[in-house]
Amino acid sequence: MTTTATYLVEGMTCGHCTNAVTTEVSKLAGVSQVAIDLATGEVVVTSEAELDRADVRAAVDEAGYELKS
Amino acid sequence: MTTTATYLVEGMTCGHCTNAVTTEVSKLAGVSQVAIDLATGEVVVTSEAELDRADVRAAVDEAGYELKS
Repeated sequence: MTTTATYLVEGMTCGHCTNAVTTEVSKLAGVSQVAIDLATGEVVVTSEAELDRADVRAAVDEAGYELKS
Repeated sequence: MTTTATYLVEGMTCGHCTNAVTTEVSKLAGVSQVAIDLATGEVVVTSEAELDRADVRAAVDEAGYELKS
């Protein structure tokens, strides 16, 4: 089964920022797609199973940004 | 002899942007230091000899930004 969740990330200002977040979130087990809307900060993650929010938060932190919701 | 020139680059919004510009401009022959003020877009380049503006423009372009002056 595939599940999709939308997160809000603060602080991304350019394509490098979205690349950094995409790279880190993509490393999470089961993630097949990461789509980011830079204007809104919305990060849509498609994965095989529901992700642990703490893992997503850690990945976003690793990229240098903050998970808002 | 060492010379210092200040350029204005448009479009940099974050540390990734300044890193990209620093990386490309640093590749130019004779460049020893690149210092960027993200807030103003000022790029201060120290080099052994005066740089060709066209080379600086090309390096900034390569990084994905525009040399304004």
